[in-house]
Amino acid sequence: MPIAYTDLVALLQGIFVRHGVTPEVASVLATNCATAERDGAHSHGVFRIKGYLSSLASGWVSGTAVPVVEDVASGYVAADAAGGFAQPALHAARPLLVAKARAAGIAVLAIRNSHHFAALWPDVEPFAEEGLVALSVVNSMTCVVPHGASKPVFGTNPVAFAAPCAGGAPIVFDLATSALAHGDVQIAAREGHSLPPGSGVDRHGQPTCDPAAVLDGGALLPFGGHKGSALSMMVELLSAALTGGHFSFGFDWSQHPGAQTPWTGQLIIVIDPAKAAGVPFAERAQTLVAHMREAGVERMPGERRQRNRARAAAEGIPLKAEVLAQLRQWAGQAV
Amino acid sequence: MPIAYTDLVALLQGIFVRHGVTPEVASVLATNCATAERDGAHSHGVFRIKGYLSSLASGWVSGTAVPVVEDVASGYVAADAAGGFAQPALHAARPLLVAKARAAGIAVLAIRNSHHFAALWPDVEPFAEEGLVALSVVNSMTCVVPHGASKPVFGTNPVAFAAPCAGGAPIVFDLATSALAHGDVQIAAREGHSLPPGSGVDRHGQPTCDPAAVLDGGALLPFGGHKGSALSMMVELLSAALTGGHFSFGFDWSQHPGAQTPWTGQLIIVIDPAKAAGVPFAERAQTLVAHMREAGVERMPGERRQRNRARAAAEGIPLKAEVLAQLRQWAGQAV
Repeated sequence: MPIAYTDLVALLQGIFVRHGVTPEVASVLATNCATAERDGAHSHGVFRIKGYLSSLASGWVSGTAVPVVEDVASGYVAADAAGGFAQPALHAARPLLVAKARAAGIAVLAIRNSHHFAALWPDVEPFAEEGLVALSVVNSMTCVVPHGASKPVFGTNPVAFAAPCAGGAPIVFDLATSALAHGDVQIAAREGHSLPPGSGVDRHGQPTCDPAAVLDGGALLPFGGHKGSALSMMVELLSAALTGGHFSFGFDWSQHPGAQTPWTGQLIIVIDPAKAAGVPFAERAQTLVAHMREAGVERMPGERRQRNRARAAAEGIPLKAEVLAQLRQWAGQAV
Repeated sequence: MPIAYTDLVALLQGIFVRHGVTPEVASVLATNCATAERDGAHSHGVFRIKGYLSSLASGWVSGTAVPVVEDVASGYVAADAAGGFAQPALHAARPLLVAKARAAGIAVLAIRNSHHFAALWPDVEPFAEEGLVALSVVNSMTCVVPHGASKPVFGTNPVAFAAPCAGGAPIVFDLATSALAHGDVQIAAREGHSLPPGSGVDRHGQPTCDPAAVLDGGALLPFGGHKGSALSMMVELLSAALTGGHFSFGFDWSQHPGAQTPWTGQLIIVIDPAKAAGVPFAERAQTLVAHMREAGVERMPGERRQRNRARAAAEGIPLKAEVLAQLRQWAGQAV
């Protein structure tokens, strides 16, 4: 049951508005979620809508928050998301961030008091599309056991990067510093798949490949042993300590049954490669990609999303009939 | 045969000067190398001196280069290392970089035309010691096969991070995006140890645990599969494309037998956490460390180096007699 991208955005926007979200915030969230679905990033697509609505209904996250953007220094922008979502704060701060990055060569946006429940790559890709290099980190909720520890401390704590590349789409990656993203565990549980070895532990700290055991009091492990663990620690420091946001272990949602959105912080660093010496950055990036392909790399980071995007533009976004029916029901439409 | 830190610095400085390096550059390199040896980072300690001298003798790297520092924008410093080492370029650009970071909140130093043959953590740790957060990447020489490829493209491409932490030493890590650092492979070969599974391939692209096979036309693999590979690609883009330096595959030292120092680029991002909202950053970092310890983490990143450093301050730096004799011989001292 394919649906056009713009129709999916409108449908999701309608859902958010119907559940008490302001039109401005609804537009940002709907675009983000429809983009993920369009690009085949199913764990952060319409699959997430139920969690959004549950969190909104619990009173845990504000759908009406108006972010406050602060011009801190010539390269530093802060944003208080006011207990709302991170994406509207980025949306509000973005023009100032880009202007500073172009003037100073580099600028940072520190978002705090924010909920991030989406993929991270949609936050960085647009910078690369306008010729900038962007790096972002966001912490989430305690579900990852640090290397050498016995209890979870970190969130899945992704790192996302985007850079322009001449002659093609930007280079974009978004990687959880956990062995798996939380959304992938949820999907595996729903679909009855087991997890790859080394992904997680059960509630007793024992290794398990059962997604249900990970979700039921268990935890994930970092990717790549002590290295992924160090990177996850860095994400906590940059996303929470440097923004004034909560650590992944620093919030208590126990009084809000149904809450699912981590209340933390996010950091985005934007660099203007026009300041670089020598051959333009995007041409250098193209050279690197050519060498990687020549060495046998068949799929560059972000390439699968680009292919799904092109297919969706031609054929619409494939959605199961019952999924579309559920979305329409949430939007208050006749199904 | 213990030697005091200051004596080791003086000894190494004498070696460099005797091999045609200017006193200024010799001081920077000797301090860097002695610091690594003192802190127990043996793969980047005096073990490296032979490679430094071999590279200098080959005419591949300049020991007399004077770096040129460029004030590009309010948050952007560039440095042309002029075919010399990266560390003197960082040394020369450092005051301007720190001043910009404190004024703008964030600043970047892009070093190009530079040779980096040392550990990366000594480049970032001093920033944390003065209350700043620092992140650095440097690319090296083609020896790592991208995930999904059959031939090497990337270098070992480390990422280093340093952040202040109240009540203790800074949090510092330095991780190769390869499964192992090149220096560790060299040491394993020298000492006859085998490599952990998944570290490398031989000249035919077949998995091997033999360090000699990796060094003899073989290659390393990224850590953590496609994630480490994506990070290594990011390091190439930031260290080379963004600085105007060479990619790891972008230089040809075949006309310089004995050359060992990669001729690439380095990026350093420095953030002033005094700009952060809320509780001071260093106190937040202390809270994170406390939670990690409470969860069972016994050794924080950088902690082993701190312990070695304290021991060296009390007892001197342990060096084998034949190693010390070799160093003294290179310095032209009576042995």
